[in-house]
Amino acid sequence: MRSRNNSIHEFNFIDSTLREGEQFRGTHFSIDDKREIASLLDRFGVEYMELSTPVASPQSADAIRTLADMRRRYKLLTHIRANMDDAKLAVDCGIDGADVYIGTSNYMREYSHGKSLEQVIEIGQKVVAYLNEQDIETRFSTEDTFRSNFADVMTVYRAMDLAGVDRVGVADTVGIADPMQTYNLISNLRDVVSCDIEFHGHNDSSCAVANAFCALQAGATHIDTTILGIGERNGITPMGALVGRLYTCDKALVDKYDLCLLPEIERVVAEKLGIEIPYNTPITGEVAFHHKAGVHTNAVLKNPMTYEAINPEDFGMSRVIDVAHRLVGRNAIREYAARGGLALPEDVLNLATAQVKLMADEGPITLEDVDRILSKMMLPLDD
Amino acid sequence: MRSRNNSIHEFNFIDSTLREGEQFRGTHFSIDDKREIASLLDRFGVEYMELSTPVASPQSADAIRTLADMRRRYKLLTHIRANMDDAKLAVDCGIDGADVYIGTSNYMREYSHGKSLEQVIEIGQKVVAYLNEQDIETRFSTEDTFRSNFADVMTVYRAMDLAGVDRVGVADTVGIADPMQTYNLISNLRDVVSCDIEFHGHNDSSCAVANAFCALQAGATHIDTTILGIGERNGITPMGALVGRLYTCDKALVDKYDLCLLPEIERVVAEKLGIEIPYNTPITGEVAFHHKAGVHTNAVLKNPMTYEAINPEDFGMSRVIDVAHRLVGRNAIREYAARGGLALPEDVLNLATAQVKLMADEGPITLEDVDRILSKMMLPLDD
Repeated sequence: MRSRNNSIHEFNFIDSTLREGEQFRGTHFSIDDKREIASLLDRFGVEYMELSTPVASPQSADAIRTLADMRRRYKLLTHIRANMDDAKLAVDCGIDGADVYIGTSNYMREYSHGKSLEQVIEIGQKVVAYLNEQDIETRFSTEDTFRSNFADVMTVYRAMDLAGVDRVGVADTVGIADPMQTYNLISNLRDVVSCDIEFHGHNDSSCAVANAFCALQAGATHIDTTILGIGERNGITPMGALVGRLYTCDKALVDKYDLCLLPEIERVVAEKLGIEIPYNTPITGEVAFHHKAGVHTNAVLKNPMTYEAINPEDFGMSRVIDVAHRLVGRNAIREYAARGGLALPEDVLNLATAQVKLMADEGPITLEDVDRILSKMMLPLDD
Repeated sequence: MRSRNNSIHEFNFIDSTLREGEQFRGTHFSIDDKREIASLLDRFGVEYMELSTPVASPQSADAIRTLADMRRRYKLLTHIRANMDDAKLAVDCGIDGADVYIGTSNYMREYSHGKSLEQVIEIGQKVVAYLNEQDIETRFSTEDTFRSNFADVMTVYRAMDLAGVDRVGVADTVGIADPMQTYNLISNLRDVVSCDIEFHGHNDSSCAVANAFCALQAGATHIDTTILGIGERNGITPMGALVGRLYTCDKALVDKYDLCLLPEIERVVAEKLGIEIPYNTPITGEVAFHHKAGVHTNAVLKNPMTYEAINPEDFGMSRVIDVAHRLVGRNAIREYAARGGLALPEDVLNLATAQVKLMADEGPITLEDVDRILSKMMLPLDD
């Protein structure tokens, strides 16, 4: 692995909820849905929004035209195949930029589009030249980059860089890349091209966030994300989780976004799709700040940083100290009782804790059960 | 970053569903639950099962005794604080091994146990010596390793290695580590100790799978996992996802497990907890093998490897080619019609595809809608 300082500086999110997210099972965004989601993400501060190709259907084209006419801070992109018809229609719809893609792996060349490497470069150059003439920001991405021949993809990237593309894209289309592969490939690419570098990573092997982070460490400038990671199969890098990863590394990295809007954006998208926000979602998941084990709750009550890498308040969330279970510790019970106005001497505290544990051993218990145990030992706190 | 060949050889899963998983919000496993889960995981082939400390409650101790008496292939562990009382009770319950832990970060030393580094080593040595005498396999783990002073943790690990511990443990207790930090720390540790190395990673910043994988690449031998990643806050490395990550790297790595049992194990645990298996779960998630975009479905119909890193059949799962949406392509419609016994000439196919797209632009559609469009163009296929 090359030596780099690995510090992340500038980066941009390309939100693809309205493109990759449309490839998620059961997504049917209306134009109003698309306006609403784009407005929320504009307020959040994403730098780009990518929409489905206008070639997909009449509504897909209308949606681009509608968003193009809205007041917004983000740049409006669409995702098109490397061909002139798609490019012309995209320009006609009023985009600011085009994300052009073509497969470079043997799989893609054999089973998808059937073109040789020379043909890939030729059509790429032609499309980019046309878009440049129209003053459209351009990205050229290979598809399935990690199963492509290394020399082939570097040849394509260099040719496109020389052709004047604004950005080249690396795509882990099947979710096969691991963090070090991602770091190494982007790192090598950083030396081959002078333009910006975009990373798009699927989550089939659960590395979409880690790979995006390593891509940034290696010099990528743009990351494709969607709200809640929705996309083809089990999706791509979820924006919220990547924000969490970056925050954990250095809070200042995500200062530019309106973080407290994240829970609302995810709720809106989840509702439209009829899905639950998974319990294991960082930051906004129901249990993200849920502390249960005795050793943990004891320390968190003294200083939350002991068992929290992220401050829930920075995202408009709050923490939960759970005391209704068999793993509870006496300090958590003491604090819980004190908050309820009860002062427990040590011997009573020990007895109460043992009773909670015993009751929880019998089956699930609630906070009301804990209250009942404590109320039997009632000693009002002096004010 | 040190140069290593990064190839993963032998590794062991320490399933902690019955310990870390008990720290998940709302988990209340009965002894029967614990027996059932342990039996399934035994059939799957996990090498170790870790249970909550017997100190937690009477049922916690009984559960260890019960599992200790069962026929099983896995080694039975419990997770204890570094003190003699906990160690003695654990031995009395019939464990094969003890996972001993203590915090080494300033946070932990100040807010959790208040011990100096010398005291940490002293109590560690004492507990390990006692367990060794009892012929118990021993692990000594620091807690919050990534926020600990590097020299301090290496000093502790070396002291414990010399004290005869079987395994030292690295814990990303707050989910703050990134893949390269993990790789670097384990890689350095690999040169400091001669014993085995265990990695325990929380998922607060979505890197629990990636970090576990990088830990293995750097020389770790044991990984803590739970079913569906359940654990304190948003949990730790999910076993299924790590299996997927390893399979994607080299299928032979997970040959030793009964992979087709994975969906059932996850279903059983999800049911007991009353949670949904998140849609974005690799392999067993509802959409893990769901193909939708036109370009994707076209290629997958020719060769699934084009857009699949994992063969669903290896896990008793199957793929879905979705044609009822606006992103559908003509090849997917052709294939769908052919499977239903309809041969569509090219012009009819184009018309049918356009009609599906138009209808889907109006709102969500179903396969029955697609069937209706196709049936209007009925041309029975010659047998």
